[in-house]
Amino acid sequence: MTFKTQLRYRFGDIDDAGIAYYPKLLHYFHSAFEDWWSDALGRPYPALLHDDKLGLPTVKLEAEFFSPVRYGDEPWVHLGVLRIGNSSVEFGFWMTRGDDPKPLCRARVVTAAVNMATLQKCRLPDVWRERFAEFTLDEADFPTAR
Amino acid sequence: MTFKTQLRYRFGDIDDAGIAYYPKLLHYFHSAFEDWWSDALGRPYPALLHDDKLGLPTVKLEAEFFSPVRYGDEPWVHLGVLRIGNSSVEFGFWMTRGDDPKPLCRARVVTAAVNMATLQKCRLPDVWRERFAEFTLDEADFPTAR
Amino acid sequence: MTFKTQLRYRFGDIDDAGIAYYPKLLHYFHSAFEDWWSDALGRPYPALLHDDKLGLPTVKLEAEFFSPVRYGDEPWVHLGVLRIGNSSVEFGFWMTRGDDPKPLCRARVVTAAVNMATLQKCRLPDVWRERFAEFTLDEADFPTAR
Amino acid sequence: MTFKTQLRYRFGDIDDAGIAYYPKLLHYFHSAFEDWWSDALGRPYPALLHDDKLGLPTVKLEAEFFSPVRYGDEPWVHLGVLRIGNSSVEFGFWMTRGDDPKPLCRARVVTAAVNMATLQKCRLPDVWRERFAEFTLDEADFPTAR
Repeated sequence: MTFKTQLRYRFGDIDDAGIAYYPKLLHYFHSAFEDWWSDALGRPYPALLHDDKLGLPTVKLEAEFFSPVRYGDEPWVHLGVLRIGNSSVEFGFWMTRGDDPKPLCRARVVTAAVNMATLQKCRLPDVWRERFAEFTLDEADFPTAR
Repeated sequence: MTFKTQLRYRFGDIDDAGIAYYPKLLHYFHSAFEDWWSDALGRPYPALLHDDKLGLPTVKLEAEFFSPVRYGDEPWVHLGVLRIGNSSVEFGFWMTRGDDPKPLCRARVVTAAVNMATLQKCRLPDVWRERFAEFTLDEADFPTAR
Repeated sequence: MTFKTQLRYRFGDIDDAGIAYYPKLLHYFHSAFEDWWSDALGRPYPALLHDDKLGLPTVKLEAEFFSPVRYGDEPWVHLGVLRIGNSSVEFGFWMTRGDDPKPLCRARVVTAAVNMATLQKCRLPDVWRERFAEFTLDEADFPTAR
Repeated sequence: MTFKTQLRYRFGDIDDAGIAYYPKLLHYFHSAFEDWWSDALGRPYPALLHDDKLGLPTVKLEAEFFSPVRYGDEPWVHLGVLRIGNSSVEFGFWMTRGDDPKPLCRARVVTAAVNMATLQKCRLPDVWRERFAEFTLDEADFPTAR
């Protein structure tokens, strides 16, 4: 099972070439990550950070941009879990439009569990290890346009 | 005496109409405010916030947008101090292009001195009261295009 | 009748003081304006811009920030129409949290109808004049915290 | 020879964890790319886009984030050219602080030369091929913290 959420690409998130500015696409992937916490895991990310003192900052990123996203697009952003390590978790994100399964862009994002009080790495708690496993994405199912 | 700093309007700060997205113009005014602390007052704003526990959040804003700013513009952003109250300080910001004194946009920004530990209002310290006064801008000199 | 939409304040829209960066609050007001076109008027703003060649850029803005917005807030953003002129339209926006009607911030935004092919002012078309009137907000009903 | 430019990390480019929001770090890499055009190549990127109808959108990205960037940092952003293909150009970007050569983060960014009138790939013009070669960065010199 993977998670998806629909987002409105906004008027001010466009660049001077008239298409999505790519750092904003990565912002939309992070927004989907936040929606996953709120809507799928039932623990809003701010509560995780502030109350549980657990964070998942990005340490590594690989992104591919296949087709331009434009103002007016209301893309689906998909999230799956590619790998769960001791402290690291690798996510796969991709964006699609309408019913077309072909991705507009995708990113592989490696995060590290950190104790927010110290910003030091920690083991991913078992409670989340189990919940994350529900969203496992096999490498073979991570869609590509290439 | 007023302060000015030149900024490069960036590729990703444009909207779908091909001109500056107005919240970004306000971001550029805030950037000029930060440059004023670093380059004119000699106390970077992060040091003021973190070490002196003093901040100047915006409580009120009036802005006028006279002419579009485009990608490739390297506008001058000007700052002057319109009024110093007990805790509040009113700034005038405006943007010009090249040697043309006519403003592209301007904003009147009221800030309140706050203790960053509590986010409660406090009296603006005398040391800053005196320094700010060097940058006084008379209402009559706050340029308008109307 | 006024329009409202609920937005998630995002992880990256916070400033170094740990609260909402005010240009981002104005971005959220613009996002609500876009949602109003899509969800209430039934004509997405990109279609208005690209197909109808009509835009409503902001020419004047007055904003007040009463209480900080924080990460984790999912504020309601409200929109009403304060005044319809020949080409100009004045909107009132405000943000509330949960069931509390007290605004966190508000803005009075004057826009001008422009022909997107020329960026010149034009008369607001009658079809929109009538639809906008459905969302009239009396000055007395524009909430303030002061 | 590689290019470097110093940037001020801004108050509003911080996330709720109090450190740089990673999509903003990529925005700063793009800003350095724009500065390279203006300050090193002598052809501002807007002129390239608008007048020469040539653009270099990002098609692939690999980024690593080694150490947090904080408000108050005025990082150096470095740019070198890792590979020049027929239409694609691969850049290496990295950020350092003060005199410390250890990178805070780095990214490998593959761009494709496109005709801005059609957004179709084109051969990178020879004039730029030669100028880009002046900024060649050997893979072995692309700094890493790992």
